[in-house]
Amino acid sequence: MLNPNTSETNRQILVDALAPYQEPNISIEVVNAKKGVEGLESYYHKVIQGAEILPMIQKAEDDGYDGVIIACYGDPAIEAAKELVNIPVIGIAEAALFLAPILGHKFLVLVTADTSVPRAERHIRQLGLNESLGEVRAINPGTSWTIVDSLKDREKSKNLIIEACRGALDESRAEVIILGCSEMAEHAADMQQELGVPVIDPTTVAVQTIIGLVKMNLAQSKRFCYQKPPEFQKKE
Amino acid sequence: MLNPNTSETNRQILVDALAPYQEPNISIEVVNAKKGVEGLESYYHKVIQGAEILPMIQKAEDDGYDGVIIACYGDPAIEAAKELVNIPVIGIAEAALFLAPILGHKFLVLVTADTSVPRAERHIRQLGLNESLGEVRAINPGTSWTIVDSLKDREKSKNLIIEACRGALDESRAEVIILGCSEMAEHAADMQQELGVPVIDPTTVAVQTIIGLVKMNLAQSKRFCYQKPPEFQKKE
Amino acid sequence: MLNPNTSETNRQILVDALAPYQEPNISIEVVNAKKGVEGLESYYHKVIQGAEILPMIQKAEDDGYDGVIIACYGDPAIEAAKELVNIPVIGIAEAALFLAPILGHKFLVLVTADTSVPRAERHIRQLGLNESLGEVRAINPGTSWTIVDSLKDREKSKNLIIEACRGALDESRAEVIILGCSEMAEHAADMQQELGVPVIDPTTVAVQTIIGLVKMNLAQSKRFCYQKPPEFQKKE
Amino acid sequence: MLNPNTSETNRQILVDALAPYQEPNISIEVVNAKKGVEGLESYYHKVIQGAEILPMIQKAEDDGYDGVIIACYGDPAIEAAKELVNIPVIGIAEAALFLAPILGHKFLVLVTADTSVPRAERHIRQLGLNESLGEVRAINPGTSWTIVDSLKDREKSKNLIIEACRGALDESRAEVIILGCSEMAEHAADMQQELGVPVIDPTTVAVQTIIGLVKMNLAQSKRFCYQKPPEFQKKE
Amino acid sequence: MLNPNTSETNRQILVDALAPYQEPNISIEVVNAKKGVEGLESYYHKVIQGAEILPMIQKAEDDGYDGVIIACYGDPAIEAAKELVNIPVIGIAEAALFLAPILGHKFLVLVTADTSVPRAERHIRQLGLNESLGEVRAINPGTSWTIVDSLKDREKSKNLIIEACRGALDESRAEVIILGCSEMAEHAADMQQELGVPVIDPTTVAVQTIIGLVKMNLAQSKRFCYQKPPEFQKKE
Amino acid sequence: MLNPNTSETNRQILVDALAPYQEPNISIEVVNAKKGVEGLESYYHKVIQGAEILPMIQKAEDDGYDGVIIACYGDPAIEAAKELVNIPVIGIAEAALFLAPILGHKFLVLVTADTSVPRAERHIRQLGLNESLGEVRAINPGTSWTIVDSLKDREKSKNLIIEACRGALDESRAEVIILGCSEMAEHAADMQQELGVPVIDPTTVAVQTIIGLVKMNLAQSKRFCYQKPPEFQKKE
Repeated sequence: MLNPNTSETNRQILVDALAPYQEPNISIEVVNAKKGVEGLESYYHKVIQGAEILPMIQKAEDDGYDGVIIACYGDPAIEAAKELVNIPVIGIAEAALFLAPILGHKFLVLVTADTSVPRAERHIRQLGLNESLGEVRAINPGTSWTIVDSLKDREKSKNLIIEACRGALDESRAEVIILGCSEMAEHAADMQQELGVPVIDPTTVAVQTIIGLVKMNLAQSKRFCYQKPPEFQKKE
Repeated sequence: MLNPNTSETNRQILVDALAPYQEPNISIEVVNAKKGVEGLESYYHKVIQGAEILPMIQKAEDDGYDGVIIACYGDPAIEAAKELVNIPVIGIAEAALFLAPILGHKFLVLVTADTSVPRAERHIRQLGLNESLGEVRAINPGTSWTIVDSLKDREKSKNLIIEACRGALDESRAEVIILGCSEMAEHAADMQQELGVPVIDPTTVAVQTIIGLVKMNLAQSKRFCYQKPPEFQKKE
Repeated sequence: MLNPNTSETNRQILVDALAPYQEPNISIEVVNAKKGVEGLESYYHKVIQGAEILPMIQKAEDDGYDGVIIACYGDPAIEAAKELVNIPVIGIAEAALFLAPILGHKFLVLVTADTSVPRAERHIRQLGLNESLGEVRAINPGTSWTIVDSLKDREKSKNLIIEACRGALDESRAEVIILGCSEMAEHAADMQQELGVPVIDPTTVAVQTIIGLVKMNLAQSKRFCYQKPPEFQKKE
Repeated sequence: MLNPNTSETNRQILVDALAPYQEPNISIEVVNAKKGVEGLESYYHKVIQGAEILPMIQKAEDDGYDGVIIACYGDPAIEAAKELVNIPVIGIAEAALFLAPILGHKFLVLVTADTSVPRAERHIRQLGLNESLGEVRAINPGTSWTIVDSLKDREKSKNLIIEACRGALDESRAEVIILGCSEMAEHAADMQQELGVPVIDPTTVAVQTIIGLVKMNLAQSKRFCYQKPPEFQKKE
Repeated sequence: MLNPNTSETNRQILVDALAPYQEPNISIEVVNAKKGVEGLESYYHKVIQGAEILPMIQKAEDDGYDGVIIACYGDPAIEAAKELVNIPVIGIAEAALFLAPILGHKFLVLVTADTSVPRAERHIRQLGLNESLGEVRAINPGTSWTIVDSLKDREKSKNLIIEACRGALDESRAEVIILGCSEMAEHAADMQQELGVPVIDPTTVAVQTIIGLVKMNLAQSKRFCYQKPPEFQKKE
Repeated sequence: MLNPNTSETNRQILVDALAPYQEPNISIEVVNAKKGVEGLESYYHKVIQGAEILPMIQKAEDDGYDGVIIACYGDPAIEAAKELVNIPVIGIAEAALFLAPILGHKFLVLVTADTSVPRAERHIRQLGLNESLGEVRAINPGTSWTIVDSLKDREKSKNLIIEACRGALDESRAEVIILGCSEMAEHAADMQQELGVPVIDPTTVAVQTIIGLVKMNLAQSKRFCYQKPPEFQKKE
């Protein structure tokens, strides 16, 4: 699993979140990007960190891994990653977004900052899932609260999240919540308890999905959209 | 797993298809509807067999099962089933349809008969997935070939399927195939080999998805859409 | 006309609502389901009562009726019913929903309970009418008010309805109201008077539509979607 | 009923088509535009003939008519007409287009000339009915065949229509046909017989719909979209 | 440039707004409709004034103009105008609506009166731009404020506009504003300054777009949709 | 203008295409990426070359340029570029795609290779323009023809393009053509002559659009979607 930022705290959150899902014959590793920002909060970060992780994805296949997860809700460089390798690659946002409509009529996506809302909405549109979208809401609208702040003060982050959810559930009539940032993972169980609706941690879903894909011998189609770039085809 | 028809052949196909996915601490049982038709080929069958299986779903929860799969591509009575119980319920069509867009830009759904095409298209529209639909195609258009025929002559069924796929892939430019009938499950591996694109067997996907849901402690939201019917609420 | 619940009160409301539309050479009968619930308030009821009324629809054709209306806003078993017979079959919801956009830019659907909102929204999506939907609103959100309660206290029901409409019209800017439950029929004229917008009683519309279809010698197409199920084809 | 062109032949076709639907207490008159073209085959004609018929619609209300039909498949000036008067106004295209999805999964619209195809498609998009559209097809693509030609040679017109339908039904998998020009009305019964699918004559449907609206005391909402223009409000 | 109303004030606003864009070798003239209303506030006006300006568009081509702009946000008779001539024709609304999504995720359209909201929404739907629409809002909802009032009291008009924008930006999260009436043009710069988001004056955009089309030798396609009406083809 | 590949041939094509649009007081420069591939033919290239050009965009603003064009039909890193700077940034694909629907009902996009088709379709979906899309077609489907090949043999490239257009125009009924690769620019005039429909060269359109934006003092909104990334905000 690739964590495309450089935050060790965030990496540890992911490791903890996945601990209960480790199985005897399955090994999950969480690797950070080697350089760049601590949290991806813009399209700019998606491109820069995306370029950073693409060679790591190629290396994961060369090293014999069975699949790769890009563990940032923005799914940076996800299409490029699917092109590069034959092993299955999945982004945590797409994994969560394609599960949510099975669990309820409309879903709510919770993101960190105001500026993430249009990015998240455009990603949902790109995936063709507009009809199941209830609302995308920022946990602290109108402020400059960032992912990096969230990583520092976990308790405040959790309270902001639950408060934002209560309002959003009422107004959007959503029935399912998606945590729109990998650093929110640790709050999922508490939130589900307190809010009474399913709370989807995208990272966990992505792990289940990729394990399923490997077991079923399925990966992204190489027919058109995710065909290898010309220079990588020659290599084979 | 509920097979909502009465065909023992079909049941055995499902059992065989799932054999490789049995795990030490997971037990999967395949149960047929007790009465009714051998193959669901109409909206009429969906209602009648749907009514037939609803008490079985209630019983599955009472008997301590962790989740239920409705193993017919039409997803009969799926919303009603999600209402009735607290354990996760999934239909094989929805499981497959929400996986396919992750694996390729557009998907092809293969169904048995001409008359199933609009039913399958309307189901995709209901799920809000129109933008990822390449085409729904019948394996033997213009004839009276039915699921029951397919169950009798497995080799002919397989050849019809592969031939139909070749034409459809060319014309629709789809990149992923979904097998739109649970009895096609045994051909998935051969088709993937021969056609060079991912072939999704909905039954297998549903098994992986429900195992994931159980592990993640997720089930359909009880907030609005799948709230228990009034008379079942009083029971609790 | 089939009233797919068992409530005699509801049946009488329908009879009264249709009285002004009786014509010399047209005979309209209202028949209840013989067993089951008094009001359909879930997908579960739609399946169970749907299975209950299908043989009645077959019988209606055998008895020489010219057309059938399923008089529950959920349009239970509507596609199955269209398959079964050659005479035109119409659901009251679809009749109303396909009239409303002719009368105004966006419509408001009024339903009884919170849990009906997603069901009604999904039905509109299924019919491909999302673009004309203003809002679906429950007359008593956040409470456990049910159709059965509405049938008991008609005056309170009417006041709740008008109050809910005022708020919804302001917020959704809808221009036309659809009464999303057959038991609301008797309030239509008062509401239209008081609210100043067209109020569509689906039952009445369905009667006009089916009379029109019979006069024009039109019925559901038997080409693909509503072809008779195989076992009924053999009968002919 | 307003026939917004000047063709007496076309007017007579409409009169004949409506003859079987005349009822004792209902009187239907067919009136032509006083000047302009014989057949509307462009947006230009829609504006010019639209301006021509608007005073006639105002006059119809002043003369005590209960409702107005604009009998051209392009629905010229339909929104303006709905604004002008309080009695119900309906276009024949919208009447047919909102009936067709009840009768089958996808519909086919047959138009006279190649250049009408985008106009018809844009009208369907404007009504929010894209999801039910199978195809719009011209009866004589690539030629300069016009409505005026059709009015002269009725037999050739019918043969062209039936031939075009056969091809289009196969390719688009449509289940219902809409006749996209009021002059095709007389062929509806023959076509339904020969092609085995419902054939909708928009004029006839519009008559049934407007009779229904009058009986139910319904008309276009005056709330926003169809409010009277300011200078007509002052008049009242 | 055709101003399809008869208001000299409005014409002067357009002349002033375009002054900074005059270039040495480009000449822009603003011409009013010769008769009719001072402001278009209904579908009725669109038809009547549309019929009024069509001959002026034909004359513009005959007089050797290189392109025509219809300078009313309703784009009256725009398709008919595109049919009539070979020189490029553009409506100010379409020019603005197809620029806005490049500048931000969702746009806000500001219109004068309540009744314009559905007209503006339907125009956006007709152009296929629903996904980029944030909201259409009237500057003075619930009152009888009209374009003619706005033309009389420019200061009050400006204040109403800015106030309406503040509320709408907060609620709709739009990022770009389109001025939905040509008489608002003079406030664009002040609004952009005060509100901190791009404010699009459709008239100015249309001028830039038509200059670009002329330089690139591009005009509306004459293939199907905008082919000349039959009687104008013979003329050539 | 940024040409995000390293091909000098491609750069020269752009320079030639823009020559006729140079104006006295406007200066357009074409700059290549300093390293990377000669033609962008995958999502992988979009990320890698996107990361390459982002600092060049920042530098363009620092150097006092008034606007930036990313001159590759894939619009690589376009959102990130819009975030980074305050001057207007536009991609050539978005410029063309938002012009085409003004010129005709449906447009055809011509791309080089089979694998570009889903990328181009997904970009159109991302921009919310699905309703105006006729078809995306590769000029040489089923072969391994690439942009680099096109750059070598210009005559063969032109013939392939015109041949592909003829077929696609017939089948898709499109009315406008968009050249889906910046290297096709030099064929635009010949194609328009030969095919009789408007042929849009995206590079030229982007130049006109950015000149217009600069003159009108408009740029991407900094409200949410294209706000500067946090680390660049501090810089100001």
